[in-house]
Amino acid sequence: MNMQLIQTVAGLRDALAPVRRSGASVGLAPTMGALHAGHGRLIELARQETGCVVVSIFVNPIQFNQKDDYERYPRDLARDLEFCRARGVDVVFVPEISEMYPSPQRTFVEVERLTEHLCGRFRPGHFRGVATVVMKLLNIVQPDRAYFGEKDAQQLAVIRRMVRDLDVPVEIVPVATVREPDGLALSSRNQRLSAAERRVAPALYQVLQRAGERIAAGVTDVQAVKMEALAAIEGLPGLRVEYLEFVDPEDMQPVERIAGPVRVMAAVWVGATRLIDNVLCPLAAVTQVTEIA
Amino acid sequence: MNMQLIQTVAGLRDALAPVRRSGASVGLAPTMGALHAGHGRLIELARQETGCVVVSIFVNPIQFNQKDDYERYPRDLARDLEFCRARGVDVVFVPEISEMYPSPQRTFVEVERLTEHLCGRFRPGHFRGVATVVMKLLNIVQPDRAYFGEKDAQQLAVIRRMVRDLDVPVEIVPVATVREPDGLALSSRNQRLSAAERRVAPALYQVLQRAGERIAAGVTDVQAVKMEALAAIEGLPGLRVEYLEFVDPEDMQPVERIAGPVRVMAAVWVGATRLIDNVLCPLAAVTQVTEIA
Repeated sequence: MNMQLIQTVAGLRDALAPVRRSGASVGLAPTMGALHAGHGRLIELARQETGCVVVSIFVNPIQFNQKDDYERYPRDLARDLEFCRARGVDVVFVPEISEMYPSPQRTFVEVERLTEHLCGRFRPGHFRGVATVVMKLLNIVQPDRAYFGEKDAQQLAVIRRMVRDLDVPVEIVPVATVREPDGLALSSRNQRLSAAERRVAPALYQVLQRAGERIAAGVTDVQAVKMEALAAIEGLPGLRVEYLEFVDPEDMQPVERIAGPVRVMAAVWVGATRLIDNVLCPLAAVTQVTEIA
Repeated sequence: MNMQLIQTVAGLRDALAPVRRSGASVGLAPTMGALHAGHGRLIELARQETGCVVVSIFVNPIQFNQKDDYERYPRDLARDLEFCRARGVDVVFVPEISEMYPSPQRTFVEVERLTEHLCGRFRPGHFRGVATVVMKLLNIVQPDRAYFGEKDAQQLAVIRRMVRDLDVPVEIVPVATVREPDGLALSSRNQRLSAAERRVAPALYQVLQRAGERIAAGVTDVQAVKMEALAAIEGLPGLRVEYLEFVDPEDMQPVERIAGPVRVMAAVWVGATRLIDNVLCPLAAVTQVTEIA
């Protein structure tokens, strides 16, 4: 089957109607384009698990809190289409802004509490824009399964909560972060790094890993581990920490003492580029030791 | 076919799956119970237009801004079920609060601008609760068509906007207000009126009608018509106006001069009971006359 490129909501619904009638399941990988192996992994899983794979490519203006970041966001549709074709995608949905927002958007989906900290604190309105556009895409595509990367762990938590709270009939599938050989998490924004910035960028993941290992080793004093991690990043040239927090993986609330699984989450500026990453410490064993002590 | 009474989301989805597979369309009339002929009209239309009629009965706590109003809201499930059965309803969905809100609700649907005035101003959080529960019900039932009464004109405008802004795949069907012979709009809250209150309550509709007629007659000075209407209501014993506004029917913004269709909307306290009502003045002809003048 040839890959279809569709630009309108009505066109997409028409294309998917016979698929659904045939009983095939639909998988959606929502993206902002500038596709890389992380997106490739979403597509690969969707390809394995569903009968019809839809990739949406839409740089969503309402989730950018800085105009500059929106304008500089990398775009390369020709390359993205080739990327999708090579991976057996069935439908690529590439709407214009005027198709997604034909009149002033008055309706927004807000997820409270989970968006108070981390990126939610430093990018006001970001998750409102994300939740709103994902709700729209889920309503347009009506997928059985939708695939999201764990690199954006707060986004994933927000989407899962939205789907649960609003009874959206879709399975949200989390997909493990894909990394460069040196550990740097794949991100469309990595394209913006200079050679020197690219060399120092993997430090983010190294520091998060080390913090995770300290906690896995039984250290429960979050503040001490955090100070250590901050010092390690700030000691490197060109890096500046926006946040680095230890949070519970569901509610994304900072924890003061380790008493269950935590996710170590950080946003770091590498020159003029903002990168995020995170590691999970499952930690069930340590919790019990702590409680016995 | 016997009417099914279903209390869980999973049960409802199971019951509707074969209906959908058969190709039959699904109609939803969302209600808070205490059913009357206004709801009867929603059901009747759904019965004519769709293959499977679902009525939901759920007194939604998150749309009540006053605990007292929530607790005093009339409930009579046995009567409601008989009402639905007599009208050929296929499925009645009656979830418990714990089924609709199994964990603290973090996600809310907000419709801006349309909710600034009228009930949105006097019942803070009301439309957020309405939009959120309707979004949930639409996701649970996935109806082809959903029926809402025009008595709650601001609610109807909010739901239509939400559906449009979020690309919800449903047709929202507006249903004309059903009235008592003396003009009083049917409302579950009418049950709370004393005999004396019931006698004076129809004045609300009479005043709205008179205001509408004045505008249809070409009066464009909204302020004058409004003052007249306010004086007429406040002159009656036991009536107190909460708001009375002339708004554009889509955006629900108060207008200062008549330059297109308007809806005259009011909320009035009759003793301890709050009633709302509205009339539409289409007004295309008058607009043109005004513009020529």
